[in-house]
Amino acid sequence: MKKGLMLIISGPAGSGKGTVNRHLLATGDFVYSISATTRAPRPEDTDGVTYHFISREEFISRIESGGMLEYTEYCGNFYGTPRKEAEAVLESGKNLILEIEVDGARQIKEKYPEAILIMLLPPSFKVQESRLRGRGTEPEEKILERLARTKEELRFVDSYDYVVYNYDGCDREAADKILAIVSAKNSSLPRNPSVMEKYFEA
Amino acid sequence: MKKGLMLIISGPAGSGKGTVNRHLLATGDFVYSISATTRAPRPEDTDGVTYHFISREEFISRIESGGMLEYTEYCGNFYGTPRKEAEAVLESGKNLILEIEVDGARQIKEKYPEAILIMLLPPSFKVQESRLRGRGTEPEEKILERLARTKEELRFVDSYDYVVYNYDGCDREAADKILAIVSAKNSSLPRNPSVMEKYFEA
Repeated sequence: MKKGLMLIISGPAGSGKGTVNRHLLATGDFVYSISATTRAPRPEDTDGVTYHFISREEFISRIESGGMLEYTEYCGNFYGTPRKEAEAVLESGKNLILEIEVDGARQIKEKYPEAILIMLLPPSFKVQESRLRGRGTEPEEKILERLARTKEELRFVDSYDYVVYNYDGCDREAADKILAIVSAKNSSLPRNPSVMEKYFEA
Repeated sequence: MKKGLMLIISGPAGSGKGTVNRHLLATGDFVYSISATTRAPRPEDTDGVTYHFISREEFISRIESGGMLEYTEYCGNFYGTPRKEAEAVLESGKNLILEIEVDGARQIKEKYPEAILIMLLPPSFKVQESRLRGRGTEPEEKILERLARTKEELRFVDSYDYVVYNYDGCDREAADKILAIVSAKNSSLPRNPSVMEKYFEA
């Protein structure tokens, strides 16, 4: 059995990451990576589902022992991707989805050059803006803040492997493009060693 | 509009190239490259459909002027891929299918590093053998000859980009894997220049 693939999916607010991930998870071939964090759980949180909640001491100890694939500090709290859980998923043959931002993506690509970096984007900034406003659930200030972060979130897009435009935002098209990336990778020669030998001995 | 992709599809007898190509052509996004040859037309041939029939002088003159993407001599006749027709297809945005063997594939990859080399294979040599015999249309001698060529046809498989196993031989699965390769390539960063600029100016 082939090891699973590590997919890093980044994208600004309004790119439709949630919908795309649901489509991918529905295939049964993907597992969503749960981040670890040192922030205090909120009422809506469930340990091991929204996050793995761990202490600051534990987090720092894991960083030091190489137990975090990537991490960042935000508003005084650590957030990161636990290595052990990630590797267990890959070993099981399932593909791992990491929904992380550009800095984390770069940290992981350094350790795992075979990680697949995908930038999910609305077709344009204008469409992104109208999607965020169309939700009608957030105050104007919050929307402007999210939009302002987009340029920052895209600054390393040139070091990504793929850009997937999410034209509709609701349908399967963007998820299908990501499934195609996975399928193509699985047909690539590096994922199929010793073609000749296996062909004749099978 | 993006230029089309050049797909080189190789595969031994029984790999199902014909069925796969029909599925690809049915999408309307692909054009099948017609080879040029110096061999005499047979009753079943139509000029410009089975081959472009040209004279030996013409063929040699095209080789010398760089007008052949690849060529080979077989039983005293030349066979090759005319460059002009190929480039016209790519410029039109359609993907070009070249059904050629390993030597031609290597010649093309040298001139067009972006050409996508795909080896289509039955799941194993045993299955290939039973498929060829199952056809019941060829004399044993011919079947053995085809089987004997397989090792030769696979000798550069390691320099291919993809290997696509055709498990069923009749269904769409192998064609879908090739469509996934095309989709993934179209999502790759090199096929999407200036992501950032286009995103904000659109």
